[in-house]
Amino acid sequence: MSVCFALLGAGRIGKVHAKAITGNNDAKLVAVMDAFEQAASELAAAYDCEVRTLDEIEAASDVDAVVICTPTDTHADLIERFARAGKAIFCEKPVDLSIDRVRECLDTVRETGAKLMVGFNRRFDPSFQAVRAAIDEGRIGDVEQVVLTSRDPGPPPAEYIIKSGGIFRDMTIHDFDMARFLLGEEIISVTATASVLVDKEIGELGDFDTASILLVTASGRQCVITNSRRATYGYDQRIEIHGSKGMLAAENQRPLMIEIANEQGYQRPPLHDFFMTRYVEAYAAEITSFIAALRDGAEITPTGEDGLKALILADAALKSATEKRIVEIG
Amino acid sequence: MSVCFALLGAGRIGKVHAKAITGNNDAKLVAVMDAFEQAASELAAAYDCEVRTLDEIEAASDVDAVVICTPTDTHADLIERFARAGKAIFCEKPVDLSIDRVRECLDTVRETGAKLMVGFNRRFDPSFQAVRAAIDEGRIGDVEQVVLTSRDPGPPPAEYIIKSGGIFRDMTIHDFDMARFLLGEEIISVTATASVLVDKEIGELGDFDTASILLVTASGRQCVITNSRRATYGYDQRIEIHGSKGMLAAENQRPLMIEIANEQGYQRPPLHDFFMTRYVEAYAAEITSFIAALRDGAEITPTGEDGLKALILADAALKSATEKRIVEIG
Amino acid sequence: MSVCFALLGAGRIGKVHAKAITGNNDAKLVAVMDAFEQAASELAAAYDCEVRTLDEIEAASDVDAVVICTPTDTHADLIERFARAGKAIFCEKPVDLSIDRVRECLDTVRETGAKLMVGFNRRFDPSFQAVRAAIDEGRIGDVEQVVLTSRDPGPPPAEYIIKSGGIFRDMTIHDFDMARFLLGEEIISVTATASVLVDKEIGELGDFDTASILLVTASGRQCVITNSRRATYGYDQRIEIHGSKGMLAAENQRPLMIEIANEQGYQRPPLHDFFMTRYVEAYAAEITSFIAALRDGAEITPTGEDGLKALILADAALKSATEKRIVEIG
Amino acid sequence: MSVCFALLGAGRIGKVHAKAITGNNDAKLVAVMDAFEQAASELAAAYDCEVRTLDEIEAASDVDAVVICTPTDTHADLIERFARAGKAIFCEKPVDLSIDRVRECLDTVRETGAKLMVGFNRRFDPSFQAVRAAIDEGRIGDVEQVVLTSRDPGPPPAEYIIKSGGIFRDMTIHDFDMARFLLGEEIISVTATASVLVDKEIGELGDFDTASILLVTASGRQCVITNSRRATYGYDQRIEIHGSKGMLAAENQRPLMIEIANEQGYQRPPLHDFFMTRYVEAYAAEITSFIAALRDGAEITPTGEDGLKALILADAALKSATEKRIVEIG
Repeated sequence: MSVCFALLGAGRIGKVHAKAITGNNDAKLVAVMDAFEQAASELAAAYDCEVRTLDEIEAASDVDAVVICTPTDTHADLIERFARAGKAIFCEKPVDLSIDRVRECLDTVRETGAKLMVGFNRRFDPSFQAVRAAIDEGRIGDVEQVVLTSRDPGPPPAEYIIKSGGIFRDMTIHDFDMARFLLGEEIISVTATASVLVDKEIGELGDFDTASILLVTASGRQCVITNSRRATYGYDQRIEIHGSKGMLAAENQRPLMIEIANEQGYQRPPLHDFFMTRYVEAYAAEITSFIAALRDGAEITPTGEDGLKALILADAALKSATEKRIVEIG
Repeated sequence: MSVCFALLGAGRIGKVHAKAITGNNDAKLVAVMDAFEQAASELAAAYDCEVRTLDEIEAASDVDAVVICTPTDTHADLIERFARAGKAIFCEKPVDLSIDRVRECLDTVRETGAKLMVGFNRRFDPSFQAVRAAIDEGRIGDVEQVVLTSRDPGPPPAEYIIKSGGIFRDMTIHDFDMARFLLGEEIISVTATASVLVDKEIGELGDFDTASILLVTASGRQCVITNSRRATYGYDQRIEIHGSKGMLAAENQRPLMIEIANEQGYQRPPLHDFFMTRYVEAYAAEITSFIAALRDGAEITPTGEDGLKALILADAALKSATEKRIVEIG
Repeated sequence: MSVCFALLGAGRIGKVHAKAITGNNDAKLVAVMDAFEQAASELAAAYDCEVRTLDEIEAASDVDAVVICTPTDTHADLIERFARAGKAIFCEKPVDLSIDRVRECLDTVRETGAKLMVGFNRRFDPSFQAVRAAIDEGRIGDVEQVVLTSRDPGPPPAEYIIKSGGIFRDMTIHDFDMARFLLGEEIISVTATASVLVDKEIGELGDFDTASILLVTASGRQCVITNSRRATYGYDQRIEIHGSKGMLAAENQRPLMIEIANEQGYQRPPLHDFFMTRYVEAYAAEITSFIAALRDGAEITPTGEDGLKALILADAALKSATEKRIVEIG
Repeated sequence: MSVCFALLGAGRIGKVHAKAITGNNDAKLVAVMDAFEQAASELAAAYDCEVRTLDEIEAASDVDAVVICTPTDTHADLIERFARAGKAIFCEKPVDLSIDRVRECLDTVRETGAKLMVGFNRRFDPSFQAVRAAIDEGRIGDVEQVVLTSRDPGPPPAEYIIKSGGIFRDMTIHDFDMARFLLGEEIISVTATASVLVDKEIGELGDFDTASILLVTASGRQCVITNSRRATYGYDQRIEIHGSKGMLAAENQRPLMIEIANEQGYQRPPLHDFFMTRYVEAYAAEITSFIAALRDGAEITPTGEDGLKALILADAALKSATEKRIVEIG
């Protein structure tokens, strides 16, 4: 039996999930909801499903699970509502920008016994999965240092920046989750430095566009992260892990594997535009993993707790960058 | 309006096309037929379409186009039958192993005015398309030499070899088509050498498993092809083109972009298993191109004539390898 | 006219310089001195020069310049002595492990007007030079982030560790100099974290073997450095620089450009063993640059001041790692 | 004791050998001769050796070996002369452009018992040596196909072309030697196609500038070679070998290991200019091997016989390209 989904939010990331769901042989997209009606209608037409209200979806017996892709400030409310309605929930990161609100929401999830998965898509990228598997197989021994590179092709518009919670909660949060995923140990201290080098307007909005972060675990494992809101050559997403027996790296994916050589030298095309094309396989695998966990009754990861922990690191990074000090994690 | 397809043949390549059709927003898979009923039923169940007979498909008003994935010796008959029935036709290569039969069949297609596309999937690979586009943009000037590498991961079973028409008609035929696609000029002479180095049984069946081919065009452009029925490191598919202004290359796709380094050095995983995973995007683009041509009334390429020309080169290569002489193309 | 050199110290790094000097058409190795006589004799025999005492070298009219490759604790004394003797001086890093002693020594150099070059060999690596030149040409716009990877193949013996001044003064000091070389701005804050993950004995000696460092400049440019005393795959030396218009990277040099592919995948050989083979061209270019400056009367870089500044950063890193706080540079 | 050399010919390749000899701790350059006196004087000044006549070198008791870098049409005479004079001989390829003359010359060498090494420098490139060693270690099983790419950066002047013996005897001859070096079996048939695509003047001189060659051994091993007198991106020198267990490749050397990324994509610098910079290590290793053989009394390779066999293949290729037929090797 297919798992029947309702999609909440038909924007950029909603479309990514609609495609992943409809391309999955074990999933069925039943309904879509969006505050902006035209967006809902268009997506419904493209994927042959119904437009429904939140109330209808809540009451629907043909909906097993909801995928929450609405604006961030609605996430926690929707999680609580559908947890109480007995639906399985996939929620895009973050659960909320407030740690307290996240904790409250996760309490509700716990009480209702609802199934909740938080959308850290990178964990499901085939190459990153292969990296994690190679660590588990002991191929590089004990992990010692992790180096994460994460650079967006260009800065988002001011409207986005304002609601984003800032670079650490919006962008680095993925790296914090990957750091936890790869280090195999909880992080005990965060040092971050952040600058406005790309776009002055970002600074005027109180945010940063360029950041470097240093993380340490209890046993002394280290992680460095470099972020920028600009990469002229495309969406730059790399991982490097050093262990006692060797190194593991995940290079950038290349949309075209061609090269041209002439007097100027050897030239390869830029990287992917952004996450919608770079992480196609990851989004598909993420939904597959969600469905598998629902069917097996297995624990779903990444959990709400994973979402919370990444947010705590993001808040610590912001404090470190602002107060210019090393921040210990409680 | 979607183009409605019937799939003839539910084997390995039939499944590849079923996936490409059902993943295309402008296509609909209506029916499937296979001499082996269980194969048809399973595919119909997986993709939610009907099992029908050839007669039913021929008569069906809800079928716009057929995709022929049946055994090679049925291709020409099916093309003629569905050309007369007014269906658009996509046929897997080759049209037939006999040049005379191909010519006869193409005459029928011409008379009926039917739309026919021959399945040379490689032309639609995004990287190979980008290579062709770069040539057209003059980025390497005039094409001078083409180097094609095409190596299967392992030899097919004896049953396949027997019906395949031999390595040149079955395997190199793709390279002959790519050579024509990339050289931009017809080939006037073929020299081939072929050996049995991989599997003695292939030799006992009268075929070869290792071949090198030298092609020349009227203006002196050159192409070399190397083929083998074995590549321990995966399905090896590379293109290199030298022009008056530079070089263009399409490297192998890598299913995982990871690397591990230790005392032994740097190690990357093997290539794709075979064409079903390597050319996923190419098969999707191929069907998209077929649909676009049907809609626009544009000429469909590769044409039946392209299929014929590749077969003529394959026959010439066989003659060259067997008679140990350079064979001129009429 | 060739510049005539005396080499002080015939150990590992002394041999590297002997080779660079004798391979330079504008240099002549006249004399060698080593506290361990046999080392001096062997080197003198190999390169056809004389063994002399410090007094003889000081008094020699046929010696234009000395190359100091003796133990670190003799550097400052030797610099002062030969500065007073009117010789040009090339001194291996560091001038001394004590900032005060370095300052005192540089005062003497200034007073005597002696020519002094400090041996930060990496600045002279052809690829790193090309990186610096590309920045100067504006090819990546303004520098924003620098990422330095520097990993030794294996930890040095305890005797070496004891006299080394610790990982920051011995190993990271090269990265501090490269950071200054590439950032184009002085560093104003240092955060370092350091662990003992490779070899417990190193920890027992009060040193670290694994470190990550975060540097910031006044305008908010950032640099991250990762170091380890172990890299099973060879001597890992990489640079990556992000600017407003793009990225510049210097990859590892590979002693062999071969690759082998089989069922396990694609394998390339390990990197160079260590600096003696990795930086052959850099050491040659370093001496060439020293000679050119002597001839032109041009300023010699890196200067003693460069050596001092790198040492100040090293001391700050040690303080940061030990006191677990961000350290501002005065 | 060092081996004492006289260098005959102080042109482009003579300088390469002068550098290799003087950089070798076991060699000493004693004398140089050139028909063009100034060339001899300059080289003698640069490397601190004497200018001598052929007669003086022949009679000199302080000359152990001669390195012949004079024009091709003098090689055979000089080999015979110095063979009779009891000197060891290193001769640049080819011994002569006439097979009969080569045979005659090698007879003289045999009769005199002289030591003769022919200069196929590529065999001594560290990466190509590593490829050969990996084959010997059985790492790719039995060799099945060899693919050689050899492209000069630009065509030589007309004066050079006229005396060169044509592309096959001048340029492909290196690939013929590498084919023999790597195939591990003698070649029994040659098919070549050659065109004038780069420079019409080359055609007017009766030569070609673009060639593709197909070689076969008795057991059915195959080799394809592609050559061009132009490669805008630098001197292109690659090897690829397919065996029963895997593939071995030697990639191009890169003078700079840097990469720049921007909106246009990723760009690496061009390759080496030509053989003088690309094969520095090979020329050094070649002289080292010559010296080692002289000292050990070991057989010197490549031998005069190797030179002869490569020339026979070159002649066969020319015949094949001209007469448009497959040429069998006797």
